Amino acid sequence: MSAKNKKAVVLLSGGLDSATVLAIARSEGFQLFALTFRYGQRHRLEIEAAKKIAKSLDAIEHWIIDIDLARFGGSALTDSTIEVPKDRTDLGSPDLIPPTYVPARNTIFLSYAIAWAEVIGAFDIFIGVNAIDYSGYPDCRPEFIAAFEKVANLATAAAAQDRNQYKIHTPIINMTKREIILTGTKLGVDYSLTHSCYDPDETGISCGRCDSCRLRLKGFAEAGIKDPIEYQISTKE
Amino acid sequence: MSAKNKKAVVLLSGGLDSATVLAIARSEGFQLFALTFRYGQRHRLEIEAAKKIAKSLDAIEHWIIDIDLARFGGSALTDSTIEVPKDRTDLGSPDLIPPTYVPARNTIFLSYAIAWAEVIGAFDIFIGVNAIDYSGYPDCRPEFIAAFEKVANLATAAAAQDRNQYKIHTPIINMTKREIILTGTKLGVDYSLTHSCYDPDETGISCGRCDSCRLRLKGFAEAGIKDPIEYQISTKE
Repeated sequence: MSAKNKKAVVLLSGGLDSATVLAIARSEGFQLFALTFRYGQRHRLEIEAAKKIAKSLDAIEHWIIDIDLARFGGSALTDSTIEVPKDRTDLGSPDLIPPTYVPARNTIFLSYAIAWAEVIGAFDIFIGVNAIDYSGYPDCRPEFIAAFEKVANLATAAAAQDRNQYKIHTPIINMTKREIILTGTKLGVDYSLTHSCYDPDETGISCGRCDSCRLRLKGFAEAGIKDPIEYQISTKE
Repeated sequence: MSAKNKKAVVLLSGGLDSATVLAIARSEGFQLFALTFRYGQRHRLEIEAAKKIAKSLDAIEHWIIDIDLARFGGSALTDSTIEVPKDRTDLGSPDLIPPTYVPARNTIFLSYAIAWAEVIGAFDIFIGVNAIDYSGYPDCRPEFIAAFEKVANLATAAAAQDRNQYKIHTPIINMTKREIILTGTKLGVDYSLTHSCYDPDETGISCGRCDSCRLRLKGFAEAGIKDPIEYQISTKE
């Protein structure tokens, strides 16, 4: 696939999945415009991680946008009074959407992405949603992405005037965490820069017990690679 | 139609259209949760208008969200270096989307609306898009709204778990400006509180020549009602 000199907007959270997606977009030849959101008080570490990842993978621009999702509340990730679940055994059950779900988050993120894409003349947007080893969030499903792509192609002047069509790329949507880690490793992602934990301690060390840590640790274990980050609990590989 | 005790999120810009939509939602019995965005430096007057309108129509809550669309640029409404067109004669031509178009604006606004709706338990969202007397923005078309409604019903936990379905109400989408003004007048909208101009002077007086003023003046003239706001130019009714 050749995308030489084509621009892509890549949503970058600072976690493992989006770092891998950024590396995939780079490997396809895109010029990378990374987009990160500061949307809740728990995510300082993710932002720092995102900055390092964007730099390490040669993003041309990296924008960090402030959005006040904490004001809406309704999620353990933006409201410190809601507990982050630990040691869950029913990960990924579609009937049990966990309290770390943030209302309409990916819809808001993708909306900003198409705004930026339109202004810089990009028609390719990358997002690291995953429908296999995931937490059961509805806005990570392929049917959501397809519906949003349709919105992008109706909402914007560029698409309405048929100059081009937007494509929402979801290169890891059908990968297991193991496959994501193996892909990223091959493409040179430095996973020591990434941050995944929903509930790190004050010094930034990951808890090892929230959904995000558990999925990450399981992925590294299955990939046969040592997770380069530190955890509060002892982790076996 | 009875919507007693049902909550609705109503997008409120401070303009004539959204004020009318707020009054329509009220007339249908909804509890009103008005949502306004502060997204560009040119819109101070709209925010003030929105506050007065929300109060006058008994909104239970009125939230004003800061979003930094000016950072993206690409629009005469958020970038003061781009001229607001005056005295256009080709209003509403689908081939000519004017520079006052703001990339992905309605997509971003509706994304926030579903986030808030989900948190407060509302499934009804009202937006004052209009596909008749409009400026040719792609994200005002019925097909855009239908596509976004589908996104809302895939993106959110509430809809994914089949607890309910979101509905995006567009009560004025097929009305002429004349009909909008007649409808709002019947429902008690005080149009002296509304602000429409894209390019008012320092004292807040409307220019009378931008697309928004021209559509408004034409609507009042056709409705046979005197527009209660002031203009920089002399206007005949």
